[in-house]
Amino acid sequence: MTGKAGKEQEKGWIESLELPLPSLSDNRGDADRLAEALRRKIGVEGVRVDLDLLQQIPDRLREWDYRLRCILFKERAGWTLAGIVPPDRGRPAGIAVDLGTTRVVLRLIDLATGEILAQEGMDNPQIEIGPDILTRIHYAGTQRGLADLHTRIIRGIDERIRALCSGQGIDPEEIYLMAVAGNTAMSHLFLGISPKWIIREPYIPGVNMPGLVRGRALGLDINPCARVLVFPNIGSYFGGDLIAGILYSGLHKSPETALLVDVGTNAEVVLGNENWMMACAGAAGPALEGGVTRMGMMANPGVIDRVDIDPETRHFSVRTIADAPPVGICGSGLIDLAADLFLSGMIDIQGRFVPEKCNDRLKEIDEVRHLVVVSEDQSGTGADLYLSQIDLDSLIRSKAAMYTILETLTHTLGISFDEITRFNVAGTFGAFIRPESAIAIGMIPDLPRERFKVMGNSSLEGATRLLQSRDAADEIYAIREGITYMELNVNQEFMNRFSAAKFLPHTDRSRFPSVNAAGI
Amino acid sequence: MTGKAGKEQEKGWIESLELPLPSLSDNRGDADRLAEALRRKIGVEGVRVDLDLLQQIPDRLREWDYRLRCILFKERAGWTLAGIVPPDRGRPAGIAVDLGTTRVVLRLIDLATGEILAQEGMDNPQIEIGPDILTRIHYAGTQRGLADLHTRIIRGIDERIRALCSGQGIDPEEIYLMAVAGNTAMSHLFLGISPKWIIREPYIPGVNMPGLVRGRALGLDINPCARVLVFPNIGSYFGGDLIAGILYSGLHKSPETALLVDVGTNAEVVLGNENWMMACAGAAGPALEGGVTRMGMMANPGVIDRVDIDPETRHFSVRTIADAPPVGICGSGLIDLAADLFLSGMIDIQGRFVPEKCNDRLKEIDEVRHLVVVSEDQSGTGADLYLSQIDLDSLIRSKAAMYTILETLTHTLGISFDEITRFNVAGTFGAFIRPESAIAIGMIPDLPRERFKVMGNSSLEGATRLLQSRDAADEIYAIREGITYMELNVNQEFMNRFSAAKFLPHTDRSRFPSVNAAGI
Repeated sequence: MTGKAGKEQEKGWIESLELPLPSLSDNRGDADRLAEALRRKIGVEGVRVDLDLLQQIPDRLREWDYRLRCILFKERAGWTLAGIVPPDRGRPAGIAVDLGTTRVVLRLIDLATGEILAQEGMDNPQIEIGPDILTRIHYAGTQRGLADLHTRIIRGIDERIRALCSGQGIDPEEIYLMAVAGNTAMSHLFLGISPKWIIREPYIPGVNMPGLVRGRALGLDINPCARVLVFPNIGSYFGGDLIAGILYSGLHKSPETALLVDVGTNAEVVLGNENWMMACAGAAGPALEGGVTRMGMMANPGVIDRVDIDPETRHFSVRTIADAPPVGICGSGLIDLAADLFLSGMIDIQGRFVPEKCNDRLKEIDEVRHLVVVSEDQSGTGADLYLSQIDLDSLIRSKAAMYTILETLTHTLGISFDEITRFNVAGTFGAFIRPESAIAIGMIPDLPRERFKVMGNSSLEGATRLLQSRDAADEIYAIREGITYMELNVNQEFMNRFSAAKFLPHTDRSRFPSVNAAGI
Repeated sequence: MTGKAGKEQEKGWIESLELPLPSLSDNRGDADRLAEALRRKIGVEGVRVDLDLLQQIPDRLREWDYRLRCILFKERAGWTLAGIVPPDRGRPAGIAVDLGTTRVVLRLIDLATGEILAQEGMDNPQIEIGPDILTRIHYAGTQRGLADLHTRIIRGIDERIRALCSGQGIDPEEIYLMAVAGNTAMSHLFLGISPKWIIREPYIPGVNMPGLVRGRALGLDINPCARVLVFPNIGSYFGGDLIAGILYSGLHKSPETALLVDVGTNAEVVLGNENWMMACAGAAGPALEGGVTRMGMMANPGVIDRVDIDPETRHFSVRTIADAPPVGICGSGLIDLAADLFLSGMIDIQGRFVPEKCNDRLKEIDEVRHLVVVSEDQSGTGADLYLSQIDLDSLIRSKAAMYTILETLTHTLGISFDEITRFNVAGTFGAFIRPESAIAIGMIPDLPRERFKVMGNSSLEGATRLLQSRDAADEIYAIREGITYMELNVNQEFMNRFSAAKFLPHTDRSRFPSVNAAGI
């Protein structure tokens, strides 16, 4: 586990205090004395203290000789005291959560140092109800459905927290803060708020800025006064996970214009710099419905995440997760495969298999062409692993949608791709993507390779940062306020662009000077 | 029940809203839409909403066509949304509580109109543990003692709330706000916060400004999101009940200098006007310990609350509560009795019985002189009701303490009694007192009678006002900030004043020109 401490100049959420001792000439109340010390030291006005914490303060202060550490948390104007610990004992910790539809990843953070102590992932326990968010939203509308989904995710997170804590010898009672970044629907389910109206016109979330919530109110088995900050959403199709991603990317603080692309369940794109930010999301309009979302399997052992085809010999080399025998292909593997098929001339500019180049790898099944990627004797399933023409068409629609979104966004802002100095690729999908391949199929613009930065799980990283830095709590709302959300207007112009982008790499080849495909 | 609606120009805690309907061009989240409407209409920034309320918002807004009434509450900078109700149904209510050590009085308030719907009183259920606060504070330090005391008062209040509600056809779920005014120790016990350090040097309360607390956190069986505001204390010996009293008296808003005297368990005095306020409390220092506190019984049926003695015939007429046969005497009755004994010459200027005037009413029991106030054939107990020389000495110490406090306070501020344009007498005790009698014994200064105002239960009235007026929420903190608390310094000068005040009405008779006693 790599530890990443908060930068030296940034303050974390723990504040050490040494209170003036009470006397006949200074007989303020204990809690008032504490609040006043926080006001003087860090300018916190009217810090909120839960009754159960208030009840502990008089005895604890005397036990600790009026020296203590305060665990604070903040949401816009409102500061909350989430706990008090002695100056020299205890190990107050926080949990950062990437609340994915498919995968949930948790990190245990030492709040005193900002160090990442451990990390655990799990499949989202709501998958048993439905793998996609739409099924879950419908289920949430049934009797007890919302409560069921809410309980599943809370129980799952609780279990992972226990595992994380026991691995580090930390009591779950020592978890005082939690930062949760998820898409809008997942955030609703986590909070037990009905996501029903998110998917019905005019697509209204229950809440975009839920603020600080008590862990206990959510049913989490952590410190009774612990506070959970769920990252704010911009809207139904632009969630807190993106805000977390922007926070981590630093896009909102850089003078240079950068792009952040997150391909998860949806494709979400943010373009901007310290002065302005514009965002749009992918699953907008019928032409794109499911467009960028249906690419490949999840990243499990045996899943192909990289493919290389020798342009001369057309020999396939595949790499799988955990080097297990291949069982399927994930998004990044699929893009690699399509890119190399195109570069070796095995598919044409319309994405159709070229029989004379594919030779005996090509089979016709139910009148649909299938390419054997891994033959049955090599595969982990005992059967051939295929790429069908249908899969390929779907991928091409996805890549065309992605490119069209980027083109529309830059066009709207009147800037050229070349002005984008950094191209951040986030999301589980982005963690494995090879920019070369994505460029080769014309999914993303043909920019110098060094401008691409693979961000990994930027949502988790953003949630981590929030637990490491007090400043981050203000930044997330500044990001939210600073973003202009652009509704993708799927009009004739958009469709024209989309049609042009359905070629490999594009009808306008001059846009992709670096792509040297065998067939074109 | 006399109804007292909030003044026309003052806003209550209910705000009616008609939210802009959501649309594709206005797709803010439901809770955000609501928060924004509150911000626009009344300037509430960052209103707090509990998770359980947040969970209800999306469905309720649609059910009510985005028209609703919000029940708000405020504590310093922090606004809280305590509930939402439809525009045309439901009867959101609040409970004002005078949390006395001996007696607890509750009022049910209609939050929409400010009207007082009903009132209920009860003996403080903690009396079973100990009639005085000191016994309870010691008990709170034992195993489970604090929890026991807390539970007793909460259960007692819950019971009275149920009675109040059922009498008005209101569901306790419709109680959204509660305002509680009590002395510092009682406020602590109500909140479940240890009062241990209040009575130990340097006399430190656990908290002076507890802020808004969830009714549920206190264990109250009212609306789950209901908020309870416990009036802030100034210090261990100056509680929220006094702040409530000042709020009701209007002393803090008047250009004319006024005095507020509250004789309850302690004697508390506030002198001031819109520009300044100075306060001190009576049970300060060994000379006064118990001085003003041990006067008579509680106001129950049969308790004598008024005594008249014909100066000529020395015939006694007594009035009792509920006109029941006399069983004892309360504070105001005792003052009446002492005043008339003095005015009829039955006691001398040192407060000693004059045998030749008392005649056969005087008896010697255990070498102490006793005056028969009600003979056994007239009394409700079947035995003589006596006033002993010891009782009388104690009363004289009390009245001397009261006068000395007033003298010291005015002297410190360099103002004369005559500059006090209004003399407000509050507290259960004050509710029955006759200024004439208190002046006759020199307990309070000899001011024109019209300057005295009996305020009744000013603590309950202040709590009521807080539920009727939004402005009052700011006023109570302004009052708290505006008061200078004077520690009574029991030095030689104070003792000299006290000695001089132990005469009837005073060694310096010129101070009481209106008192024409038979014996002097």
